[in-house]
Amino acid sequence: MGEAVPIIGGTGALGHGLALRWAQAGVEIAIGSRDAERAAQAAERVREAVPGAKVEGLENSDAARRGPLVVLAVPFRAHSETLNNLRGALEPGQLLCDCTVPLAAAVAGKATRTLGVWQGSAAQQAEEMVPEGVRVVAAFHTIGARLLSQLDESLDQDVLICGDRREDKAKVARLAELIPGLRAVNAGALETARIVEQLTALMISINSRYSSGEAGKVYSGLQVTGLPEGDHWA
Amino acid sequence: MGEAVPIIGGTGALGHGLALRWAQAGVEIAIGSRDAERAAQAAERVREAVPGAKVEGLENSDAARRGPLVVLAVPFRAHSETLNNLRGALEPGQLLCDCTVPLAAAVAGKATRTLGVWQGSAAQQAEEMVPEGVRVVAAFHTIGARLLSQLDESLDQDVLICGDRREDKAKVARLAELIPGLRAVNAGALETARIVEQLTALMISINSRYSSGEAGKVYSGLQVTGLPEGDHWA
Repeated sequence: MGEAVPIIGGTGALGHGLALRWAQAGVEIAIGSRDAERAAQAAERVREAVPGAKVEGLENSDAARRGPLVVLAVPFRAHSETLNNLRGALEPGQLLCDCTVPLAAAVAGKATRTLGVWQGSAAQQAEEMVPEGVRVVAAFHTIGARLLSQLDESLDQDVLICGDRREDKAKVARLAELIPGLRAVNAGALETARIVEQLTALMISINSRYSSGEAGKVYSGLQVTGLPEGDHWA
Repeated sequence: MGEAVPIIGGTGALGHGLALRWAQAGVEIAIGSRDAERAAQAAERVREAVPGAKVEGLENSDAARRGPLVVLAVPFRAHSETLNNLRGALEPGQLLCDCTVPLAAAVAGKATRTLGVWQGSAAQQAEEMVPEGVRVVAAFHTIGARLLSQLDESLDQDVLICGDRREDKAKVARLAELIPGLRAVNAGALETARIVEQLTALMISINSRYSSGEAGKVYSGLQVTGLPEGDHWA
């Protein structure tokens, strides 16, 4: 296994934004897609935006074998199918960071509403579907894809991380904080993804209230106040 | 009808904190409780903390008649019963600001979990139960009661406001922003309370992760980043 960060669904908006930011930070990226050709094109787009980026594009299963911390950034309608397809690729000891949000838009509903997921959240659905020995963390739901992909924009946002093991969350936190302006916040157990995944719909609702001809398109984020100084993850 | 701000459930932690802060800002307060005697004692505690506070304590129904914007700050287990009891007191044109959170603690569950409310949220349950002509806004779910009641603590938090009419949300926003350090954010339609009410459980989860012997008890809050400058409510 390599030392890259596989981004499954890396041709989508969030996956692309994360790939750009991490590539800029010198992280090696393996962009995954159902279609290896589309993945290769996405990798090329990253290299154009970030000269010298270490990025390759692969079919999802091949990408997933490229590193120990696999980022899952697919639309909810592809969540279950993608995890099924990854069953033969993921190996015990790998960590899956699920960024998926069950927006009602997956079934042609509003993006300010979410679907009920039987297991409680997309991340808990992922936990049920990954091979034994693969653990799941949920993160990056409130980080807007558009801001990520505008490399000259500063972020100044928190990444809320849910997971059942502190050491797993710490790995995602370290990766998140390689992106300038992002602070990783420990949001609690994986089941708390049930709340945190909803926040994407909240941000979309807030964005729609504040965007205007005068203000332009607004891309809001979240910060948690009142936390102690210092490195929570040390 | 008077010009006070009635706080139904004003003997509880959140109601008391809001009463203290608004009294400090010179707002006239009518603290409501099921028990008029307990309400009077709560009013006395506010006067002790804020000399010169204009505050009285009354049975809930009497308090609700004291002003046009009624704040509902009861535990979820008392939500439905309280609204039933207020049916004869609330009048068309009044605005109800519901702060109630359906924490699972209402039925002896965890405070990091919430109950499913048939209508979608406590605020939507309130909307179903108030007399015709009374409108409902939801707010203050992420503002910790403990920080509010420590008058020397600065807040630096956003109040997320959900409601179906901008003018109603603006009234709650004006009231919220009388408290130094609070900014009112338009979170969307009343149905978005389904998301925002969950945030109390999220804050409790975060607080438990960051509180320690060294850091002491942590009381987190939320701020929305990326919003345009200027007064959204003008």
